Order: sequence, then C-alpha cells, then structure tokens
Amino acid sequence: MKKIALTLTLSCFFAAGLMAQITDPKATEVWDPVPRKITPGKNGAAPSDAIVLFDGSNLNAWETQRGGNPAPWKVENGYMEVVPRSGGIQTKQKFEDYQLHIEWSAPTVIVGEGQERGNSGVFMQGIYEVQILDSYESKTYSNGQAASIYKQSMPLVNATVAPGDWNVYDIIYKAPRFNADGIKVADGTITVIHNGVVVQNHYHIKGTTPYIGLPTNEAHGPGPISLQDHGNPMKFRNIWIREL
Amino acid sequence: MKKIALTLTLSCFFAAGLMAQITDPKATEVWDPVPRKITPGKNGAAPSDAIVLFDGSNLNAWETQRGGNPAPWKVENGYMEVVPRSGGIQTKQKFEDYQLHIEWSAPTVIVGEGQERGNSGVFMQGIYEVQILDSYESKTYSNGQAASIYKQSMPLVNATVAPGDWNVYDIIYKAPRFNADGIKVADGTITVIHNGVVVQNHYHIKGTTPYIGLPTNEAHGPGPISLQDHGNPMKFRNIWIREL
Amino acid sequence: MKKIALTLTLSCFFAAGLMAQITDPKATEVWDPVPRKITPGKNGAAPSDAIVLFDGSNLNAWETQRGGNPAPWKVENGYMEVVPRSGGIQTKQKFEDYQLHIEWSAPTVIVGEGQERGNSGVFMQGIYEVQILDSYESKTYSNGQAASIYKQSMPLVNATVAPGDWNVYDIIYKAPRFNADGIKVADGTITVIHNGVVVQNHYHIKGTTPYIGLPTNEAHGPGPISLQDHGNPMKFRNIWIREL
Amino acid sequence: MKKIALTLTLSCFFAAGLMAQITDPKATEVWDPVPRKITPGKNGAAPSDAIVLFDGSNLNAWETQRGGNPAPWKVENGYMEVVPRSGGIQTKQKFEDYQLHIEWSAPTVIVGEGQERGNSGVFMQGIYEVQILDSYESKTYSNGQAASIYKQSMPLVNATVAPGDWNVYDIIYKAPRFNADGIKVADGTITVIHNGVVVQNHYHIKGTTPYIGLPTNEAHGPGPISLQDHGNPMKFRNIWIREL
Repeated sequence: MKKIALTLTLSCFFAAGLMAQITDPKATEVWDPVPRKITPGKNGAAPSDAIVLFDGSNLNAWETQRGGNPAPWKVENGYMEVVPRSGGIQTKQKFEDYQLHIEWSAPTVIVGEGQERGNSGVFMQGIYEVQILDSYESKTYSNGQAASIYKQSMPLVNATVAPGDWNVYDIIYKAPRFNADGIKVADGTITVIHNGVVVQNHYHIKGTTPYIGLPTNEAHGPGPISLQDHGNPMKFRNIWIREL
Repeated sequence: MKKIALTLTLSCFFAAGLMAQITDPKATEVWDPVPRKITPGKNGAAPSDAIVLFDGSNLNAWETQRGGNPAPWKVENGYMEVVPRSGGIQTKQKFEDYQLHIEWSAPTVIVGEGQERGNSGVFMQGIYEVQILDSYESKTYSNGQAASIYKQSMPLVNATVAPGDWNVYDIIYKAPRFNADGIKVADGTITVIHNGVVVQNHYHIKGTTPYIGLPTNEAHGPGPISLQDHGNPMKFRNIWIREL
Repeated sequence: MKKIALTLTLSCFFAAGLMAQITDPKATEVWDPVPRKITPGKNGAAPSDAIVLFDGSNLNAWETQRGGNPAPWKVENGYMEVVPRSGGIQTKQKFEDYQLHIEWSAPTVIVGEGQERGNSGVFMQGIYEVQILDSYESKTYSNGQAASIYKQSMPLVNATVAPGDWNVYDIIYKAPRFNADGIKVADGTITVIHNGVVVQNHYHIKGTTPYIGLPTNEAHGPGPISLQDHGNPMKFRNIWIREL
Repeated sequence: MKKIALTLTLSCFFAAGLMAQITDPKATEVWDPVPRKITPGKNGAAPSDAIVLFDGSNLNAWETQRGGNPAPWKVENGYMEVVPRSGGIQTKQKFEDYQLHIEWSAPTVIVGEGQERGNSGVFMQGIYEVQILDSYESKTYSNGQAASIYKQSMPLVNATVAPGDWNVYDIIYKAPRFNADGIKVADGTITVIHNGVVVQNHYHIKGTTPYIGLPTNEAHGPGPISLQDHGNPMKFRNIWIREL
C-alpha cells in the first residue's frame, strides 16, 4: 500500500516537472473580455453594429461640403446620384479609425476618356482620396485609376467592373497622428478591397491627395467621409461604417 | 518689337517661379507600371487571377497532412465535408503572402459545448491557426472562439452565423521572416474579415498556435493551407487564394 | 523682331510641357514647420529638450512603486543604487510615447547564477519590462537575459558588458492603444539599442511581462518608468527621456 | 493506506487545476536559440560583429559610384574627406537590412547658405538619401536639412552640431520589397538617431529621394552605401554596419 502511495507522489512531481512545457491547455485560455456578438450582413449588407450612412432612402446623414447645407444630390431607386456641379457632400458625423463599405456605379452613357469618364472619389476624413473612376476600359495614369490612393499609390490590380455595374469598396482605415509640434508621428494606413480583391494592402498614406502638387501633412483631428462631385452623374448605394 | 520679346521672357521666368508650388497636374502622374486587369467575382466568387483551391467538384489540390496521400474527405453538393478521424488535409501547393477566401458551415445537429461544437481550423502555412468553431450560441474562451488567432488574439467582435449557415473568412496574410541566426526579424501579420466584418486588423502573429503551451518561433519557408479534422463533420466550400 | 518674340513664347510653352516631369527643384521643398533646434549631448548625455529623470544628485523625480513615498534607494558618486528589499521605484511623471536613455551596472561581487545574478528591470509605463541582468558570463533562458522583453522576445545578440562596467540602453517606445470595448487595437512597439547595438528592432509587444504566466492586455493610459528591486545592489545613472 | 493514496491523487489533480493560471515560471522560458555573444564598442566604436566600412586608414571598402574605380577621396588624420568634383563613392559590398553608424563633419570655413553649405548625403542601397548638411545655423527647407529623408521627411528636431564638430548618425534600415509585377509590397523603413536623438522614427520611405521631382519606386535588390560629392570638403569617419 505504501508503495502505491509513493508511486502516486512521484508521478505527481513528475507532472509538475513537465509543467515547464505547460501541460494544461487551460493555461493559455483568455476568457475576458468577451467579444460583443453582432449580426453580420450578407453580401455587403450592413452588420448590426454599423452606422448606416446611406440605406437608399434619404441623405439625412449628409450635408454640403461647403456651408453645411442639406445635401443636394438625387435619391431614387435605392441609390443616390451626383447632381453635377452641385458640389461635393460629406457626412455630418466625423470619424478616425474605421471600416467603411461603399458601392458605386459609373454612367452607362460614356462621355470622355481617362479622368473625364465616370469620375468621383471617396475621402477619408474629408482629406485622403480613394479614387472612384470608370477604369473598366479607359486609360489613365496608374496612380489615378479606380481604387488608387489618388496620386500616391496605384492599385495592385485593376478590378473595375463595367459601367452600370456596381463596384464595391471595403476599406480599413486608421487615421494619422500628430505631435504637439504639428509633425506627423504615425502615418494613416489604408487597406482597400475592390470587388473582393485586395488592391491596397495596409498602405501608409503619405499625406493629402491633391490634383496638383504634392502630399502635405497638416495636423488634424476626426473628419467626415466625403464624396466628390467631379461633374459626372455617378451613383452610390449601401454605405455603412464601423468604428475600429 | 524688342520690348515685346522682353516681356515674354519675363513672363516665362515668372511662370518658372510659380512652378515652385507645381502648377501642372501631370507632374504627379505615374503611368508605369499599369496594374494588371482582372475580372473580379461577385459575392465571394473567385476573381480571374485566383488559384482556385476548391470549387466544389474535387479535392485534387489537397493531400493528407501526414503522408501526402489523397485527401480522404467527402465531396458532395458543392462542398467538402470532414470525415471525422480521417485526419487533416493541406494544399499540395505552398504559399507565403496572400489573400485567402474560404467558407465554412457547422453541423446543424449540435453535439457538445464550447470547443466540442463544430470545431475545425484553417492554418496559414500549415502553422498559424485561424479558429473555425460554432461560436453562434456557445461559450468558450475568447481567444479560442471563431475567427480568433487560436490562443493568441480574440476577434474584435463575434460575427458567427447559425449552424447550417455559411460563414465567410477573407484573410490577408503576410508570412514572418527569419534571419540567418534563426531569429524572427519580421512578424507574420494577418487581417481577418468574418462575414464582411473586420475582426483581426493587421494583427502581428506571436508565433505558433498550439492547444497546449506557448507560441514558438522556428524559422520556416513557404507552407500549405491546411484544414483541421477536430472530429466534427464541418463543411467547406469556395476556397481560393491570390498571392500578394 | 516678331520672330524672336514668337520663339520665346514657344520655348516658354515647351518649358511648361517639361514640367510634367517637374523641372523646378523648389517644387518638392517643404519649409513649414521648422523642426525645433536642440543641443544634443555627447556620448549619451541628455539633449537640451530631455526631461532629466536622474542626473546623479537626487531621487526627486522618483517615488516608491507602492504608496508613492520618497524613493528609498541610495545615491552616491553620481549613481543610484538599489537598496535590496526596499522595493521598486517609479517616476512621479507618467508617459506614453518616448525615447528613453538609461545606464546600469551589475555588482562586481558576483553572487548566484542566471536570474539570481545582477537582476533588475526597467518597465515601460510601469508594465512592460526590458530585462536588466548580468548576462555577461552567466547562462539563463534567452527570453530572460539582458535586453530581452522579459519572457517575450530575446535580444538579437548578447551585448552585455562585464560587471562593474556600465551598460547603456537607448529605447524607442510607443504605447499600445485600446478601444472602448477594452480590446487592444494597436500593439505597443519597442526598439532597444544595447551598448550601441540594435537588439530589439521595432518589436510588437504582446502584453504584460510576468514572471509566471502569460502576457495579458488590459486597457491602460499613460504610466511611469519604473525600476525593479530584485534583491541585487544594481547601480543606475544618467536617466533621461524625450516624449515623441 | 488506500486513503493516503487517494489523498495524494486528489492533490495532484488539484495542482493540475491550478495550472490553468500557470504556476511554474519555467513554463514561459525559452532557451533556444541562444543570442550570439558580441563585444560592443564604447561611444560609437564598432562592435565585434560589425563590418567596418571605414576605420580611418584607407578606402579599400569603397569605389567610385560610376565605373567602380578606386575611391579618389582624401584620407588623413583618421577621416576621409570629399575631394570636390571627384564624384560620389560607394561600398563595394551590397546590403539589404541593417544598422549603420557613420560620423560626419562640415567645413569650418563656411561658404554659402542653405543647400550650398556643408552638403553631402548618405544613401541607403545607393538610392534613399539621409541628408548630410551643415544645418547648425543655416536656413533651408525643412525636408532638406540635416537628418531629413531628403525631400520626403523632415527630422523631428534639429540636432546638428557646429561646423568642425562631429555629427553621428545611427540608422536602422529595412529595404523595401517588390512583387513579381514590379509593384512595391513593403515600404522600406528607417529610424535615424542624430547625435543620440531620435529624428526619424520608423519612417516608411515613399520611394527615391530626387533633387528634382517625385519619389519613384522601381523594383531593386541589395545595394551599396553611397556618399555624395556635393562640392563641399565634408569629412567622414568611423563607418560600420551590421546586417539585421
């Protein structure tokens, strides 16, 4: 009997020795916090925890970029449409780090070439443009085609669909940070998935995305999502955002 | 006459002075290279430049994890199904940096709780597990639920759908790098989008993802995508990959 | 005469055409803001814009880790020395992102082996330990030797100097960030230069650095620099910090 | 007797239960690999594992940038000096990821202003310039002063010392990577410590650093360290590199 007890004691110490490599799977479990349960959407529909910026019915979440007046674009058949030369629009709410879903479609009546054809843009924090352009069968500069970070970073591939079809952008964005001297201490970063294809992969944004001139980097805080009026009757639908 | 010539000369210099702020938008255009044109898929379908790993018809791209024999799992109705205790399977091809799309579904006949319920996993390079689990209405440790980097990083939210429904993972993965001393000099990174929702955001992978014990970091090269047999009849479909 | 004028006009337009490749070097100059002028130190001395945490004369910038009482360690000959079992000390001021310089020396009277020999530690935000240890000619676990991120990341090489000599750590640290759910959304990062040699290169910190158990990640704000009393009479000198 | 045995068995299980929080500190030790032991230098001297590119005696490690002829610069008193208009020089050896130490001094006879005064540059992989300039008391554009990534990123502060004094750059560099399409898939990154002060903090390099025009990004492999002849008799000393 004593022998049995001794045996057990030894095997217990032996187990303790093995613990140096960890023998209990529970040791690497983390139970807290518990990730919030959400209901995802199907095929691009908004998940339950998203802020819906446009669901096809109205432009209540939007205002004019200059002046903060009601957004003057057209809403019909579940989409909004640029009223050319009415000016760009932006969300009333401001954001920093987020996931953004937006769908757009270029006019089937094709007018012009390159940057003249089906041109708009979606701006992170009202500043950093992800280009929107009918790049289906139209030549332009690589860093200005659809899904480019405008004048900064060409997409890895051209995944644009034909005019009239709907393009989908899924964007993961992190805002830049600035120190007290006004010098940027963390780049903004952006991942763009265009129609399900990764075209910008954690790209470090260089600064602003001007048509003329170079990126600049002035300190700023949270900003809106804005959409460009570039004179073409572009359509948008199903816009939602989740703060990260 | 001479006066006119002089005036023109001066205005030319004046224009040169203005150039300091760049006046020509062409100056910031980049025309080369031209991103390859591809045809994207709709609602998760493979784009034209993807390597299709499973299209519902056969397991030709797969082999057993041990031995490299033909993958013994069941194929029917456009999906593959784990044959419990037949062992895990992996792609014949090896990869480093990529975008991966995979869909999975847990059994509607619910057996067990926590890690016993609808358990499998998809491994980056055969090593780093993104957990697959029926986490719809079942409690387990946060860093072991669906879309966790197993035993390392819990998902930002729980976006799992009900058993029988199809879950979608869109994964952006970059392999770790090691120096000649065998020390890791660049973390692997991973972004996981679960049913359209960002749940792992450019996470820096700590090392291996063992059930028991701690992440380790041994030098390695390219590796396969592997799928776990954890004893549950999990279903998979529509698996494709694009090297980045 | 008219011919001359025409020639000049054309050459002016020609110059404008060339601008597409930018011809004026001024176009890419940025004059604002102007980086602050500082006076650097020589051979590790504090630069003019540093917060000096210890200059050899007193412990006014420090307090006990528990209770916030005056730091009880010894100050003599331009260094401070751990009074064993008096407890760890920390700065009264709290920090987030910074560059830290600190020098340390292990006792010449060698007692013990491995973790028993010349052990202390410097903690980022009072939480994340860069190991301080007499690793000159003493064997211990790789992820616990001098300049390791304790129990997480071994140094790339062992650059420790002999007991009695002064080791220098130059540390570049960025604090982790957490979201409203208490989930970490940005890793802390750390670069450690040990005696002029890069030993941790922009390492992504996994979480806390406990003696027993695993890294954890609870949300926190700014924190102090703290120094460990591990029972050995370690010496420290020339400690300064610059917020980044 | 049986009772004793039973008691021991239970306490053994109890210990196993406690292990869920890990009770053995050995469990988180990593003993392999063992970081190589090196002998660091003091106050900027080369560590034992560095490749010494210039120790004050000769230019054997260097060649002309054009033609690969013997480097024509002057060597005396432990430093090399630019022979104005003899052309830039570069290392014969090529590198990718590394830590670089270099010291430089501007002429005490001050000629010119801004970019005319004490101008040179050190180029990562022969392509990406860290500016060398007498920025002690001389105004120029911020992104072209000493320790800037030339025409891209101004230093966080101006840490330049007076002409005749020695400036020290400690640089941590990681080369960019490109995919098979010739598109950059990972930015080069650079940290610059100027006279002990962090002035570039893990900066993501945008591309080339031309005097005129914009950064470009053509695919390339390993490259040399090169030093610029900008017409000023700049001095260099104590140059060494460690591959990371």
